[in-house]
Amino acid sequence: MLVHIRRTFANARVVRHLSTFARSEFGKKAKPWRWVMTGVAGTSLTMVALYSGMRPRGVLAATLLDNKDWMSSPITDPKEMEKNPDLMRIKMEMMIMDIQRVFCRALEAEEDGKKFQVDKWSRKEGGGGITCVLQDGRVFEKAGVNISVVTGNLPQQAVQQMKSRGKTLSGKNLPFFATGISSVIHPRNPNVPTVHFNYRYFEVTDEEGKKHWWFGGGTDLTPYYLDDADVEHFHKTLKQACDKHSTSYYPDFKKWCDSYFLIPHRGETRGVGGIFFDDLEDGDQEDLFKFVSDCAAAVTPSYLPLVKKNKDTAYGDKERRWQLLRRGRYVEFNLIYDRGTKFGFSTPGVGYDRLLMSLPLNASWEYCHKPEPGSEEARLTEVLQNPRDWV
Amino acid sequence: MLVHIRRTFANARVVRHLSTFARSEFGKKAKPWRWVMTGVAGTSLTMVALYSGMRPRGVLAATLLDNKDWMSSPITDPKEMEKNPDLMRIKMEMMIMDIQRVFCRALEAEEDGKKFQVDKWSRKEGGGGITCVLQDGRVFEKAGVNISVVTGNLPQQAVQQMKSRGKTLSGKNLPFFATGISSVIHPRNPNVPTVHFNYRYFEVTDEEGKKHWWFGGGTDLTPYYLDDADVEHFHKTLKQACDKHSTSYYPDFKKWCDSYFLIPHRGETRGVGGIFFDDLEDGDQEDLFKFVSDCAAAVTPSYLPLVKKNKDTAYGDKERRWQLLRRGRYVEFNLIYDRGTKFGFSTPGVGYDRLLMSLPLNASWEYCHKPEPGSEEARLTEVLQNPRDWV
Repeated sequence: MLVHIRRTFANARVVRHLSTFARSEFGKKAKPWRWVMTGVAGTSLTMVALYSGMRPRGVLAATLLDNKDWMSSPITDPKEMEKNPDLMRIKMEMMIMDIQRVFCRALEAEEDGKKFQVDKWSRKEGGGGITCVLQDGRVFEKAGVNISVVTGNLPQQAVQQMKSRGKTLSGKNLPFFATGISSVIHPRNPNVPTVHFNYRYFEVTDEEGKKHWWFGGGTDLTPYYLDDADVEHFHKTLKQACDKHSTSYYPDFKKWCDSYFLIPHRGETRGVGGIFFDDLEDGDQEDLFKFVSDCAAAVTPSYLPLVKKNKDTAYGDKERRWQLLRRGRYVEFNLIYDRGTKFGFSTPGVGYDRLLMSLPLNASWEYCHKPEPGSEEARLTEVLQNPRDWV
Repeated sequence: MLVHIRRTFANARVVRHLSTFARSEFGKKAKPWRWVMTGVAGTSLTMVALYSGMRPRGVLAATLLDNKDWMSSPITDPKEMEKNPDLMRIKMEMMIMDIQRVFCRALEAEEDGKKFQVDKWSRKEGGGGITCVLQDGRVFEKAGVNISVVTGNLPQQAVQQMKSRGKTLSGKNLPFFATGISSVIHPRNPNVPTVHFNYRYFEVTDEEGKKHWWFGGGTDLTPYYLDDADVEHFHKTLKQACDKHSTSYYPDFKKWCDSYFLIPHRGETRGVGGIFFDDLEDGDQEDLFKFVSDCAAAVTPSYLPLVKKNKDTAYGDKERRWQLLRRGRYVEFNLIYDRGTKFGFSTPGVGYDRLLMSLPLNASWEYCHKPEPGSEEARLTEVLQNPRDWV
């Protein structure tokens, strides 16, 4: 009910960035979700003002949460969020909730009325998530944008999966917190690339009570047909976000992305890359958060122009067949190599349907398929075998 | 050229079992593959006799190999095979070559003229294989029957993958020999189940020079719609093969099959099982070989009647959609859990196309798909969640 109400108002509202929240004494006392309910029940003038986007600032507005037209109410209790607005866990959750909404709404605007299905879930071990899926649309064959905020005790196996570098966290059942947004968009038209992104924050408390934290993330593109200008735009947008924080980020994380998304048994990458980083923990936490936030905010501008440009480009059976074969490779990477999927499978209660949301609606495997020499399919394969610099 | 010639005669010949070879002094000297060539070049009377299946016994016939109309010439040098007919490696290779031919020919007979494509390959590290694939047929969407005879040094990682039980083989780069037949048949009609079988023999020499050997194998069925009589026939045929050797085999290996083909994240088995065993090494090697040979010989009679019965049964989009979803599960099992696939990926030179031959031509993943209560799809799911006794 609440979710439905919020959604009704979503389009009329102004998108505001996390860091611009107005907070007031009034806000600290109010319970934003109950407030909306009351508002509806009362059909007050305020409601009308809200609906028309003319809400007077500072009169009713100013709790931490009430200007948020998220896809659902948050995972963490809003009272907790109000109390601890400066806690990294809370800031991260709010940031990914914002990104989820902005990205989902932008994709919906490309469809002919089809909307994301919102599935809010919790796990008995602690925490939960909000999964938004749009399946079998005209433009998007399968689009998933998932948020999770998970707490509990971490099995040693999961610690292994979480850490790509040498840092060792010894001990069993360490208390942990993990929050992140993860998304894969598989469009129908083979001229529109698939995009994937994931931004996450972890905390683990070791046996001696020391809290370790780190950020990870990345955005990468998987085209079926190579439009150099599109790939350049994509990489350039990510580079701009990185460069605001360090000029070494883009080149380092571009390289990391190419090596992470390698399918070793095929000797080719999953796509044309983007950025990827893990275990980001050196430096000021706030600075790193801002970097991660900027990367996440760059997803929509990096990808949406590619959808708009190519979604109505003509294609035939040949292009569809190639797209399905490439999606088979996508499945191979995700099921055999992807650390995120392995981490998910080793964390009880996450649910296989949400973990496998990243898999395409359709995929195929032909024995010994080889693209014709000189074809567009061969040109893509050549680039996947020899990652290129795009900026 | 040779392969082509052999194939021409294939249908006219009598299928003889391995153990019934007639061998003569003449045979020991002859080189069977060259002999066929000579025969063709000479277009002799003998050729005519051969073609009509009336070859006079003991006149020209009797080398170890010349009554073999296999899918290709064998992997091991025929001279080596002639010299060591009692070596388990050789007996195993000949047995699986026979099984490959019998099964491929039986499947071809169900098609409208479409034949298996034969791909003989070798790997620089030692050995090779014969891969037979029939793709996009009227009856079979993708059918693969693969033989491999591989020698080399085994990386420790592969030793781990090979051994399911507690036996430890320490040391690096141990000399090994592995031979086996592996097959997955994905029919087009959702009323025809998918079948998989695999029979294999391993030898590994440890650091102290001791040779370890063992057999492994199994046959299992993956229906999309449950026809109880079909599943019963399948299990009964396997049980009969087992019972000839030990009455404990079928119950033990049926249970092992259900636990091996479990998809843990879904809490369901890949199919309705069959038999599965690994590390079979206790007892007389010859007896175990006969058991494995009988199991392999039971594949065609266990499965072919199901193809004949159901291949022309009517079906629609609903059934096709369900079949594709189930095939997604098949892909999940094979890529995430299957030990054979992992072993293959850790053995250089095997080739990903051959390893992934087991994957269906098409598969799909829908978010949160649930079969309708009371439907045939729900009935299958219920059985996959609670494996049943079929004999």
